[in-house]
Amino acid sequence: MEKEKMRLTEEDQSLLLKILFKQRYASELLSCELADIESDLKDSDHVHYLQVARLFDRLRNADM
Amino acid sequence: MEKEKMRLTEEDQSLLLKILFKQRYASELLSCELADIESDLKDSDHVHYLQVARLFDRLRNADM
Repeated sequence: MEKEKMRLTEEDQSLLLKILFKQRYASELLSCELADIESDLKDSDHVHYLQVARLFDRLRNADM
Repeated sequence: MEKEKMRLTEEDQSLLLKILFKQRYASELLSCELADIESDLKDSDHVHYLQVARLFDRLRNADM
């Protein structure tokens, strides 16, 4: 029986985001995604790639 | 001059959460936070610890 996808509440989502920045892993996460896309491990549309790249730059400029 | 904290839009937040699960790093992130709290690297209130532990269990049970 396929595991039912768990629904994240608003509270779950803000907790995950809070810890993502507390652990200073947000930029690292985006750079992993960019690396996967660039090395073709993940096929991804160009819009997604641009969104990730832009957010990565903004986070790095804000040292977050 | 202290770097101005960058504001995340709703779109930024959902992109980060989408990639967090795409990279299958959500459970790992929570287990790092739990480990830090348990090893006293991070002082944290009990409520925060319980929230993190509960979400970690839910994600692990849903294999997310």
